[in-house]
Amino acid sequence: MEHETRFLALNLELPPAPEPKGVYTPLLQVGNLIYLSGHLPVNSDGSLHRGKIGKDIDLEAGKLAARQVGLTILATLISNLGSLNKIKRVVKVFGMVNATTDFEKQPYVINGCSELLVEVFGRENGIGVRSALGVGSLPENVPVEIEAIFELTEE
Amino acid sequence: MEHETRFLALNLELPPAPEPKGVYTPLLQVGNLIYLSGHLPVNSDGSLHRGKIGKDIDLEAGKLAARQVGLTILATLISNLGSLNKIKRVVKVFGMVNATTDFEKQPYVINGCSELLVEVFGRENGIGVRSALGVGSLPENVPVEIEAIFELTEE
Amino acid sequence: MEHETRFLALNLELPPAPEPKGVYTPLLQVGNLIYLSGHLPVNSDGSLHRGKIGKDIDLEAGKLAARQVGLTILATLISNLGSLNKIKRVVKVFGMVNATTDFEKQPYVINGCSELLVEVFGRENGIGVRSALGVGSLPENVPVEIEAIFELTEE
Repeated sequence: MEHETRFLALNLELPPAPEPKGVYTPLLQVGNLIYLSGHLPVNSDGSLHRGKIGKDIDLEAGKLAARQVGLTILATLISNLGSLNKIKRVVKVFGMVNATTDFEKQPYVINGCSELLVEVFGRENGIGVRSALGVGSLPENVPVEIEAIFELTEE
Repeated sequence: MEHETRFLALNLELPPAPEPKGVYTPLLQVGNLIYLSGHLPVNSDGSLHRGKIGKDIDLEAGKLAARQVGLTILATLISNLGSLNKIKRVVKVFGMVNATTDFEKQPYVINGCSELLVEVFGRENGIGVRSALGVGSLPENVPVEIEAIFELTEE
Repeated sequence: MEHETRFLALNLELPPAPEPKGVYTPLLQVGNLIYLSGHLPVNSDGSLHRGKIGKDIDLEAGKLAARQVGLTILATLISNLGSLNKIKRVVKVFGMVNATTDFEKQPYVINGCSELLVEVFGRENGIGVRSALGVGSLPENVPVEIEAIFELTEE
């Protein structure tokens, strides 16, 4: 696995890994799967991307927020596993988009996260199944929340 | 397993299996589970059912769209696995309904897919767990998106 | 495992376990995981909590509804497994909140369920991964629907 090498070469700036907030944990291993909680777009200074797409922010800002969720997911993985080489592949991405009720481009928004995962894990292991949907509202009025499942390498 | 026999006897018209669109795959196997991406209601000519329930289309059109999603899921399974006899059972159906905010009949809509799965996989293996919810919006303004998990037969 | 002892000491009043409604089942075991269907807030008399948060009911009523969903989940687990000692731990909680589009406190609402699960399963085993999102609408206009995954003890 060269995920860690590829990740380091990308020279990405990661936000701080989200702290467990009382009654849930950001990450849980069951068998060889890593379940991730719904992650929000955390900036490097700890603040959040905010706004509803189509009302407060536009499509491109939404896609950037999804990429920032991806960076936050990477921060959680590295903080908990030590190295991205522990990851075999992306299994599933579930992308929730906070948008007006006439919005139709949820897949384009979630690509912001998916494209990052391909950059880091490669085409063979970075592409999993995915759903993209428009939700009514999200915590702190963030534009995007994403939950995910990863598979671990055999040890 | 007589799933394939039952499927053929039903003489269903399947849409073309959705192509992988760049940064996600329609289907992924992990262990003995098959994870399916969120599927949309694809018609036989490749077009999509469109419209929000309670605004653009009615309840029955919504249920028909959910059945069409089920047919699209079957197309993905057959295209990727070769035969429905590779499937042991339905594990989970997650049904997202694009409706007005006063809508209350999401389970009735998603039954359009669930009833098809029972026709094909039988009562013992065609009934899994399920969630049905109303979302704010969906890609291309389709009425229904469904993701699912199936269990494979032992080999 | 002392889950059953802890549960009995809490002296909780459980609603009747939801009946399988035709084309889905409330609970399904796959390997050592228990998948639960989306559960609604069922009261002890079989009626449902109703209303959209921010329109029909307030934040605290929403959190109470989430706790009631948790009690309904416990009813399903006990009805199907016989004892909560069969459960090793909470793996995942997926909390859908029926709220107005400006709502931002989905995690606070879903804590109503998560805190109950910690009371019953303890801090070590009662805390899993979680997503909390605001949906456009829910079946029967309930305020909260929650689906979950639990891990079984080894036998």
